[in-house]
Amino acid sequence: MQKNIPFILLLSFASTICAQQDKQFTLDELIPGGKEFYKYYPRTAEQFYWQGDSLLQVNGDSVFYVEKPFSSRNKEFLFSRSADEERVNQLFDSESYNMPFTAFNKENNLFIKDKNGNEIAISDEKEKGIVYGKAVHRDEFGIDGGVFWSPNGKKLAFYRMDETMVTDYPIVDVSTRIATEKSIKYPMAGEQSHEVTIGVYDTETEKTNYLKTGEPKDRYFTNVAWSPDGSYIYVAELNREQNHMKLNRYDALSGELDKTLFEETHPKYVEPQNPVLFVKNNDNQFIWQSQRDGYNHLYLYDTSGKLVKQLTKGDWEVTGILGFDEKGKTIYFVSTNPTPMDRHIYSVDLKSGKMERHTSASGVHSGMLSKSGRYIINQYSAHDNPGKIELIDTRNEKTVTLASAKNPFEGYNIPTIETGTIKATDNQTDLHYRMIKPANFDSTKKHPVAVYVYGGPHSQMVQNRWQYGLRGWELYMAQKGYIVFVMDNRGTSYRGADFENVIHRQVGVEEAKDQMRGVEFLKSLPYVDADRMGIHGWSYGGFMTITMLLNYPDVFKVGVAGGPVIDWKYYEVMYGERYMDTLQENPNGYKETSLLNKADKLKSRLLIIQGDEDPVVLMQHSLQFLKACIDAGTHPDFFIYPGHEHNMMGVDRVHLHEHITRYFDDFCR
Amino acid sequence: MQKNIPFILLLSFASTICAQQDKQFTLDELIPGGKEFYKYYPRTAEQFYWQGDSLLQVNGDSVFYVEKPFSSRNKEFLFSRSADEERVNQLFDSESYNMPFTAFNKENNLFIKDKNGNEIAISDEKEKGIVYGKAVHRDEFGIDGGVFWSPNGKKLAFYRMDETMVTDYPIVDVSTRIATEKSIKYPMAGEQSHEVTIGVYDTETEKTNYLKTGEPKDRYFTNVAWSPDGSYIYVAELNREQNHMKLNRYDALSGELDKTLFEETHPKYVEPQNPVLFVKNNDNQFIWQSQRDGYNHLYLYDTSGKLVKQLTKGDWEVTGILGFDEKGKTIYFVSTNPTPMDRHIYSVDLKSGKMERHTSASGVHSGMLSKSGRYIINQYSAHDNPGKIELIDTRNEKTVTLASAKNPFEGYNIPTIETGTIKATDNQTDLHYRMIKPANFDSTKKHPVAVYVYGGPHSQMVQNRWQYGLRGWELYMAQKGYIVFVMDNRGTSYRGADFENVIHRQVGVEEAKDQMRGVEFLKSLPYVDADRMGIHGWSYGGFMTITMLLNYPDVFKVGVAGGPVIDWKYYEVMYGERYMDTLQENPNGYKETSLLNKADKLKSRLLIIQGDEDPVVLMQHSLQFLKACIDAGTHPDFFIYPGHEHNMMGVDRVHLHEHITRYFDDFCR
Repeated sequence: MQKNIPFILLLSFASTICAQQDKQFTLDELIPGGKEFYKYYPRTAEQFYWQGDSLLQVNGDSVFYVEKPFSSRNKEFLFSRSADEERVNQLFDSESYNMPFTAFNKENNLFIKDKNGNEIAISDEKEKGIVYGKAVHRDEFGIDGGVFWSPNGKKLAFYRMDETMVTDYPIVDVSTRIATEKSIKYPMAGEQSHEVTIGVYDTETEKTNYLKTGEPKDRYFTNVAWSPDGSYIYVAELNREQNHMKLNRYDALSGELDKTLFEETHPKYVEPQNPVLFVKNNDNQFIWQSQRDGYNHLYLYDTSGKLVKQLTKGDWEVTGILGFDEKGKTIYFVSTNPTPMDRHIYSVDLKSGKMERHTSASGVHSGMLSKSGRYIINQYSAHDNPGKIELIDTRNEKTVTLASAKNPFEGYNIPTIETGTIKATDNQTDLHYRMIKPANFDSTKKHPVAVYVYGGPHSQMVQNRWQYGLRGWELYMAQKGYIVFVMDNRGTSYRGADFENVIHRQVGVEEAKDQMRGVEFLKSLPYVDADRMGIHGWSYGGFMTITMLLNYPDVFKVGVAGGPVIDWKYYEVMYGERYMDTLQENPNGYKETSLLNKADKLKSRLLIIQGDEDPVVLMQHSLQFLKACIDAGTHPDFFIYPGHEHNMMGVDRVHLHEHITRYFDDFCR
Repeated sequence: MQKNIPFILLLSFASTICAQQDKQFTLDELIPGGKEFYKYYPRTAEQFYWQGDSLLQVNGDSVFYVEKPFSSRNKEFLFSRSADEERVNQLFDSESYNMPFTAFNKENNLFIKDKNGNEIAISDEKEKGIVYGKAVHRDEFGIDGGVFWSPNGKKLAFYRMDETMVTDYPIVDVSTRIATEKSIKYPMAGEQSHEVTIGVYDTETEKTNYLKTGEPKDRYFTNVAWSPDGSYIYVAELNREQNHMKLNRYDALSGELDKTLFEETHPKYVEPQNPVLFVKNNDNQFIWQSQRDGYNHLYLYDTSGKLVKQLTKGDWEVTGILGFDEKGKTIYFVSTNPTPMDRHIYSVDLKSGKMERHTSASGVHSGMLSKSGRYIINQYSAHDNPGKIELIDTRNEKTVTLASAKNPFEGYNIPTIETGTIKATDNQTDLHYRMIKPANFDSTKKHPVAVYVYGGPHSQMVQNRWQYGLRGWELYMAQKGYIVFVMDNRGTSYRGADFENVIHRQVGVEEAKDQMRGVEFLKSLPYVDADRMGIHGWSYGGFMTITMLLNYPDVFKVGVAGGPVIDWKYYEVMYGERYMDTLQENPNGYKETSLLNKADKLKSRLLIIQGDEDPVVLMQHSLQFLKACIDAGTHPDFFIYPGHEHNMMGVDRVHLHEHITRYFDDFCR
């Protein structure tokens, strides 16, 4: 999923590189949240945004206007960002700036405000368990918000979520004088789920209607989109089993179902993640993204529900759409073609189907299209390129460099990063890895190993971006003499449906086997000390870490699992049931993947780390695992970050990585 | 406080001692809750109880009657315990068996039942925050129950505790399918406390009156006792500041205050722990226990409140009362005279004040008096005596041995235990210690040390009982090569008021200084490795452990603190304010003893262990400390026993001690 590039507050880049070739970087410099993190975080001094087909160039506090992008002589100073906040909003958030109303929440209720600041309450709900205008279905299915303005900004579609029937899960906040309980609504796999409906508020009639989505009520209402004329709403509706999707169109005013345009089914799961996107200047055609042929591709439909044509095809995936050219003849998108390590910008002609590639250098490219669609601001990096911003003229592929990031590590002796592929357990699929070798690597010596793993859906760790996506902790560990290894097993994303859905009803099983292929590779290296191997991962990666320790008890001396899933029956409905079905439908799958049943297999040193206010992977997982180990007479270690949720953010993230490292140093050095 | 000897279910003692001199005892054999704990727990094969002046002898399932204790030839088999439960109750619990009613609770309400099983509800309270007939004031002040029958069993005094004004503290139970919250009422120091009143139910009028105890309502109503004729109730009332006690007498029927008999004050605190005890055959005189002269002694009062005489005196303490002789001329008691290491049985003549000692062998004696008061069943042990039961004739001090426990370690090569004294920081008080040396102790080598500490009030770890009170874990650690050291610092009990109340408003300060005297002693020993010293304690001992690590950061390499108090403001009102006053009254004391403010001083390896359902020392302590350490950049370790309260009981206690030991082995060996 291509997200908008955030408007990052730029810090001045102090280019004081000394001659200390062997400087030891600290976690404060390497970990997001660290006091000096930005010092070694590559960035360009300028950032660029479109204003029509002209450029806005932001350099620190100064905003410049570049009328003709390919000639920088016409650069004109506009204003200081800090001095004119109004203008910042107008220029950089023009879409919502020009809308007649804005929507906002007060607690669980939804309000709108007009240009004069007059507030109108869309909902007036006293019941805490009913929520208006917020993201639903736990942000799965690409959902990241709960309000959807009609194109002219006069009608507002919004989610209403009734959670009153969902069990409370208790979370304790110890930061108050006397600890207090703040319960959350958390529907666990197989348990009663929340019920979502979609309301439509008309600012002219000041009335709200609800789409008549009917029964059963615990379905998923995803990817809400308006028709260009504001008359209809498109919803991708998915049954609770998540194997049957209908693309439905509703009359926005009456709420009646107008038509089911088409349906998609799959024996494992269907996962709609992108709303319909209407073709520019053609209200009768839209683009639909689907993995139905095994890879995520673009399909052109007409509004009768008829497939006009499949626009893209191949054993690669579309990962995002940039938009259309001015006439609506061509759509621009990003894809994994020709290698899942890269992202490149392409366009395809809707009529001829002719596809063109607009980026050449190997790397991970993202783009912003100018109004006319002729120009692209292309931001990219590659393993040996810390970041570059280019301007592309799609008519002639003429390219100029707008800005380049400096290599923040220039002049330092830092670990080397290698990549390669290893065959998956199916003996045919290539799995990509990166391997970091200590700065003072000595091939005649045996080095300890730290494997970092995530391994779950919606992820890809190894890409040809700056330093192959290396995380600061990996550099830190390599500095300390560890070889660090990261591999994307089957079950991760951007490699097609079959690659990912191998995990269905048996999460952890094939992933762990694939990771063992990585282990075998490591063991085959003469400079790897097979007796000093450790593994670390967070969330799904925490689950993978413990799964590896318990399924293969003699491999790793140490594991550190953060916020780990222990038993999928404690995980939530949307994600959990997609991959595991319900406990009732798949009792063996739950039993065999539950780490509770393997607590007696623990031989390694295992540190589990948890935020005690984690609303994603609940404390119940870790605590139940500790109990299972106590019952089995095995001895994991444990740590809590009080007040933290699923990830330790801010400065505590530095402490966290020191804590993880310390555990490796204690038992794996 | 002398508690009744529990009616222990006897297991048959398998006397299969082999010739394995060097057997390594396991934690399963050494820790209560372990699968084979009873195998090495010394006990006599028989136990004895009084039936008038005759004996009941219990041997496994068989109960014998010994009419004339000093002649065992008249022993007669009575019945099998398992075959006649009714008779067991009649004989062994005859006091309550002969009462017309029994009292019991259903949740928060109080009921009584007559001999025919008819139930009468004494309270019918719907509000969960109001409790009838249960112990109040968090079991402080010697309170261990909430019902008090009048001598004839026809009137029932009972506690009523209103906790509705006390803040809820949330505790999470993760053992349910979806974790659930069970909040407890926990009044923290300085916060609003509960309100206690005393009701009197008359079974004849079937009416309840409440004692008119008046304002302020957050006082302590302790040590409830009836006058022999059932007309009056005596209550030791203490102000919230706990420095001013009144012994009040109320009219049981009207509830009116009849008289304040006397008052006790102390600049630090007054702690009444024993109710008035009426002299046998004299309804006008009672015994009162008080530390008013610096040591706990017996005082004879008349019912006008006039002190008749101080019965005992000296720099030793009365630790319990056995009862009176038949005529009520003599009272029998247990005391620390002549050494706080021992407990001996004495009697004092109420008239002449003449004191007599009835036990001679050094050790810890306890006793049960026969009906006439002529005979005593004396049960005792000493460091070299695993347990003995004797019969004493107080008229002539003739003594026969009824039973002896075998030394369960006979034939094994076990660690040696030494004791001695060290001067406290005041340079005059003797502190008693025990030191366990490894079984294969080599005085020419340097041994690591494990200090075990409790250090708080109401405790005494070192006594001349079997193996000097050695705990199984100490034996285990000594087996592994550690020297184990345990010392009772000032602040502990049975040494007089000044010895204990040195902690007032500054808990941890003097105790830690005294423990440092122990450390200096250890360091002076040529066979101690000062670089491998660790410390472990639980509850107050957990507080002491962390206090030692933070006040003296260079002494201990390792600490393991269980259920530690971290900041006394999170502890409860009754215990917390007695020693620390309120946060408002003693802000500096709270600040200086808070471990939160010293988190940056942590240099040692520190493992904190906590039961996540601990209702005594709440999770908030540990979690806030983790947070303080994270903020300070220091690194404690942590572990949770899910579902456990303040102490890990049952089989998990074995796991706990393996976990503690492992931490010592990881970092202190």
